[in-house]
Amino acid sequence: MVDVAVIGAGQTKYGNHQLGLKGMWAEAAEKAFASVDKNFDPRQVDEAFIGSVAFGGGQLGNTAALLTEHSGMEGVAVRRVENACASSGFALRDAWMAIKSGQADIVVAGGIEKMNDLSPERKRFWLGVSGDTEWERLAGLTFPGTYALMARRHFHEHQSSHDDLVHISVKNHMHGFENEQAHLRKQVSFEKAASGFMVADPLTLYDCCPTSDGASCVILAADHIVRQFTDDPVWVRSSGAGSDRLALHDRPSITQLVATQKASKSAYSAAGITARDVDLAEVHDCFTIAEMIATEDLGFAESGQGGLFARNGEGIRNEGSVCLNPSGGLKSKGHPLGATGTGQAVEVFKQLRGSVESERQVRDAEIGITHNVGGSGATCAVHVFGRDRNE
Amino acid sequence: MVDVAVIGAGQTKYGNHQLGLKGMWAEAAEKAFASVDKNFDPRQVDEAFIGSVAFGGGQLGNTAALLTEHSGMEGVAVRRVENACASSGFALRDAWMAIKSGQADIVVAGGIEKMNDLSPERKRFWLGVSGDTEWERLAGLTFPGTYALMARRHFHEHQSSHDDLVHISVKNHMHGFENEQAHLRKQVSFEKAASGFMVADPLTLYDCCPTSDGASCVILAADHIVRQFTDDPVWVRSSGAGSDRLALHDRPSITQLVATQKASKSAYSAAGITARDVDLAEVHDCFTIAEMIATEDLGFAESGQGGLFARNGEGIRNEGSVCLNPSGGLKSKGHPLGATGTGQAVEVFKQLRGSVESERQVRDAEIGITHNVGGSGATCAVHVFGRDRNE
Repeated sequence: MVDVAVIGAGQTKYGNHQLGLKGMWAEAAEKAFASVDKNFDPRQVDEAFIGSVAFGGGQLGNTAALLTEHSGMEGVAVRRVENACASSGFALRDAWMAIKSGQADIVVAGGIEKMNDLSPERKRFWLGVSGDTEWERLAGLTFPGTYALMARRHFHEHQSSHDDLVHISVKNHMHGFENEQAHLRKQVSFEKAASGFMVADPLTLYDCCPTSDGASCVILAADHIVRQFTDDPVWVRSSGAGSDRLALHDRPSITQLVATQKASKSAYSAAGITARDVDLAEVHDCFTIAEMIATEDLGFAESGQGGLFARNGEGIRNEGSVCLNPSGGLKSKGHPLGATGTGQAVEVFKQLRGSVESERQVRDAEIGITHNVGGSGATCAVHVFGRDRNE
Repeated sequence: MVDVAVIGAGQTKYGNHQLGLKGMWAEAAEKAFASVDKNFDPRQVDEAFIGSVAFGGGQLGNTAALLTEHSGMEGVAVRRVENACASSGFALRDAWMAIKSGQADIVVAGGIEKMNDLSPERKRFWLGVSGDTEWERLAGLTFPGTYALMARRHFHEHQSSHDDLVHISVKNHMHGFENEQAHLRKQVSFEKAASGFMVADPLTLYDCCPTSDGASCVILAADHIVRQFTDDPVWVRSSGAGSDRLALHDRPSITQLVATQKASKSAYSAAGITARDVDLAEVHDCFTIAEMIATEDLGFAESGQGGLFARNGEGIRNEGSVCLNPSGGLKSKGHPLGATGTGQAVEVFKQLRGSVESERQVRDAEIGITHNVGGSGATCAVHVFGRDRNE
C-alpha cells in the first residue's frame, strides 16, 4: 500500500480580506507550491479536492474548477467537498485515498471561505445552514445556541463550569498571539474573557470563534516520488472519519461527539498510536465547549474530565504532554469554514518541520493530529501526521 | 490493485415528488440495498459519497450525514460532493477510489436533488449557480443561453442545424417513453419538437431537459467480497475525469468540451477500449446540443460531425453500433442535478444485467459508459462499466 506525505502547505492570513474567492485561493495555493523544497510545478497535480460551504452563495456550483483554473492546475480532475465546517478535513481524507488508490501521485487538498462580505443578517443565515433545518433551525436554534446546550449539559453532568471554558479561551488567544496568520491576535486576560458579552448563555463572545475569510492548501505525494520534492516530508500516518445524527435531539448524549470518537479511534488504531503519543493537536474549537468536549473524545482527558483538564492548565504549549491548538485554534486563528480542516494540516505540517515562528514552536514534536468537525458534530475527520511513517 | 464492482443500484422515479430530501434518499437507497442479490445490510457500508448541488438551499450544509442517517448507514464516513450537474459522477469516482485505496470494501455513491418546490424565480436563480458568477451570470447569461451560444457556433462552424438537434430530442423521448422512472414519458414527433416554444434561440422547449426531483444510489464492492453479494456483478472498468475553464469566454473553442475529451480519453485508455467498443452510453444531454457535442468529444462521431451523426439516426436503441441514452437521457428521464451521475450508473448497471423493462433493453450489451458534465463543461466524469473485468 502506498504511503502518503505532505510535501508542501500554505494558507492566507485568516481575517477580513479584500480578496475574493479566486484571489484568496491563488494566494494559498501559490504559498503551498512555493513551500515545496524543490522542482514543483502545479501542472504535475493529478487530482484536487477543495472544501467549501459556499458561504454567502456567491459561487455555489462548480467552484472547484474555477479555483484550480486560477492556480495553474488547469484541466485537473477536481471537485468541491462539503461537510459543513469539516469540508476540507474530508477533502484531505479524499485526497489521501486518491493517492492510496494508485490513481494519482500528486494531489492537492484545500479549502476556502469568504465570510466577511455579508450583512449580519445574511451571515446569521449562512452560519446556520449546517444545522438540521427542519428540526433545529426552524425552531429558532442558532449555532451558538446548539453549543450552549452542550455546555449547560456538560456543566450539569460533570461539575464543569464556565470558568473552565475561559481557560480554553485564554490559552488559545495566547497561542495565536504570535501567529502571523491568525485573525484575532490579542492576548486576553482571564477576567476579561470571563466577563464577555453574552452570546448564548453560558457562551460569551470569548467562547465563540470569529467569522473569517481565508484559504488553505496542502500538497500530498505518493511515497515513491516524495524525495523528488523534499528531503523533509511529513507523513500522513492515518485518516479516520465518522458521522453522527445531525440533530442534537436524536443523539443519546450531547456531551460527547460520537463522530469524533469514531474518527479518532480509527485514526489512532491505523497509525499505531494512542492519545498519549500525540505531541500537538489542532482541535476544532468553534466554541470553547467544543474543545473541552474534544479533549475527552480525542482521549486526552477521561470522559467528563475535560473541564478539569482545562482548569489544570493542560494543553498549553510546551508545558504539558500535549499542546492543543498551537495555532490559536479557531478561537484565535479564525474559522473560515471550508478552509479550517486543511488549515489545521498547514499548522501541523509546519510545526512538525519546526518552521513556525520560533516563539510558538512546539518543541520536539514528532506526532501531530488534526480534528475537524462538521456543524455540531454530524461529521468528523481526524488525521495523524508524523515525522516518520508507520513502522 | 483492487477491482471494483457495482453490486446494487436503485433510484426514485424522476419528476415531481411529494417527498423531501430525506424521503427521496431513503427510497433510492432502499431500492439499491434491495437490489443486491444476497445478504446485504446497510450497516456494512464503510464509506459514502453523496452528490448534490443543494438546490433551493433547504439543507445546504452537512446534508450527507443527514441522509445516511435516514438510510440505515449511521456513523458511516460520509461527505457531500459538489460539482454542479456532475456532482454524483464525481461521487462515484471518489467512491471507486476509496475502494481502490484499500480503505473501504463497500462504498455507497449517490446523488439527490429537490428542484420542484421553488417558485419559478428562485428556480431560475438556482439553475444559474453553476455558471461563472462574475463574468457570465452578472452579465445576464442564463444556462440555456450558454448552450444556445454553443449551438449557434456549432451550426456556424460545422453546417449543423436545429433539425439535427430535433433528431436527438425525438430519440431521447422515444427511449424514455418506456422507462417507468422517467420524468417526461411521452413520444414527441419531429414536427412537434421542431416547432417548440423558444427558450434561448435556437434552443426550444424540446431541446431542454426538465427540472426534476430525484435520488439515485449505487453500491460498490471490492473484488474479494463481491461474490458474497452477487453472482452477477457489473465491473467499473475505469474512471476518468477532467476540468475546464468555467467561463465560456476563457475557452479556445465552445464547440467542444475539453473536460469530456480528457475524461473519456483517460477512461477508455484505462479500460483498454475505444469508443467503438461501447454498446451503450448514458450521455449528459442537459440540452440537445450537449449530446450532439458529446457524440464528438466521446469519440462516437468525428469532430464537427455530431450533427450528421444525429441526422443519420445514429444512437437509436438496437439500430446502430451504439445506443445513446437508453434511459431517455436528461431530456426525457429528467435531470435532478445531483442525482444525475449515479442515476446514469443505475441505468447502465441494469442494462448490462439485462434487467430493464424488456421493450427498452439494449441487446447484447457488454460495455456501457456514463458521461456526466458539470455546468457548461467545467467538470466531467466518465465511467466505463463492463460485464467482464479488464483483461
